[in-house]
Amino acid sequence: MLFHGSLGELQKHLKRLPGVGAKTAQRLALHLAASDQELAVGLAQSLRRVVDEYHACPVCRMLTDTPVCAFCDSSDRDDARLCVVETTLDVYLVEQTGEYHGRYFVLGELLSPLDGVGPAEIHAPKLLELLRQREVEEVILALNPSTEGESTIDYLADMLEDQPAKVSRLSTGIPFGGDIGYTSQVTLSNALQRRFSIK
Amino acid sequence: MLFHGSLGELQKHLKRLPGVGAKTAQRLALHLAASDQELAVGLAQSLRRVVDEYHACPVCRMLTDTPVCAFCDSSDRDDARLCVVETTLDVYLVEQTGEYHGRYFVLGELLSPLDGVGPAEIHAPKLLELLRQREVEEVILALNPSTEGESTIDYLADMLEDQPAKVSRLSTGIPFGGDIGYTSQVTLSNALQRRFSIK
Repeated sequence: MLFHGSLGELQKHLKRLPGVGAKTAQRLALHLAASDQELAVGLAQSLRRVVDEYHACPVCRMLTDTPVCAFCDSSDRDDARLCVVETTLDVYLVEQTGEYHGRYFVLGELLSPLDGVGPAEIHAPKLLELLRQREVEEVILALNPSTEGESTIDYLADMLEDQPAKVSRLSTGIPFGGDIGYTSQVTLSNALQRRFSIK
Repeated sequence: MLFHGSLGELQKHLKRLPGVGAKTAQRLALHLAASDQELAVGLAQSLRRVVDEYHACPVCRMLTDTPVCAFCDSSDRDDARLCVVETTLDVYLVEQTGEYHGRYFVLGELLSPLDGVGPAEIHAPKLLELLRQREVEEVILALNPSTEGESTIDYLADMLEDQPAKVSRLSTGIPFGGDIGYTSQVTLSNALQRRFSIK
């Protein structure tokens, strides 16, 4: 059931958010209109401000509200390492590990030809250009081990074939605290193939 | 993890939406800022419009964008019946059954003294005033059979004790298509207590 007027319009917009279905959109629209108009105003304001202030960093395509993002602007980062991630959120997640001190490149999406996402959409030419300009020793493809992630990894590995930089990807296997009995066949088979010596 | 600047502000606002947790708010904020700024602008616009245009109907407290809501304004509705619901959405749900042609009254909330929701917050005095002004034969309390719903039903039934109108509530029992084996003890016990003769 769709509301009329601007309430119906709000419902339609909310339904376009990832993970929000028709029922949730209806409930949220009504909550904002009837129970918490203060939140509706605050939300509208912060949406406007984000749209006005945020853009992709011209160097690494990370979302930023400064002309160039803090990672590209910093002189403390290791220029020899470049970590390629799907989203800006992934940059923060990699940072939280404290394991990485290099630069980043944000694809924005993973390859998905059926959805019209090709090399241009993931800014592959820009990545290549960046590698040609810099002396990068290692490119780390920190992408999801999903179907789209694997095709993107394959595509980028091919593209970087002639580059002097080493190309690596995140390890796949049983997650820490996981249970072999509850692990998928593919994961277990990956974990066996990529087993490593400990003695 | 909280973003900085206006992106962090957007994340905080999204987190205040019912059913939206920290992780979802983060994902939504990033989606709006990085992947779909057009949606962010549309959403901000419709939020503004809803806040500007919608208010509680001065008669029945249903959410409306006209001075008086369509149900109160219509001369086709049965004045002798008044259906009391929690939210504007419930009005639409009752309408969809096609079983009801009377008037409505929207409480907005259910009684919950610990959360500071008392008789004034559910506009009980306004409901009583409405009943005194009109010749209502039946008040139907169409509220959820939850703890708060039951206390609200009890409170309103007491309040309407001296009124000439009959007071009824929705039947409780096993939902159509339900399974006795999967029905809660309370529901089954209600269904037994309120069993009705068929022969």
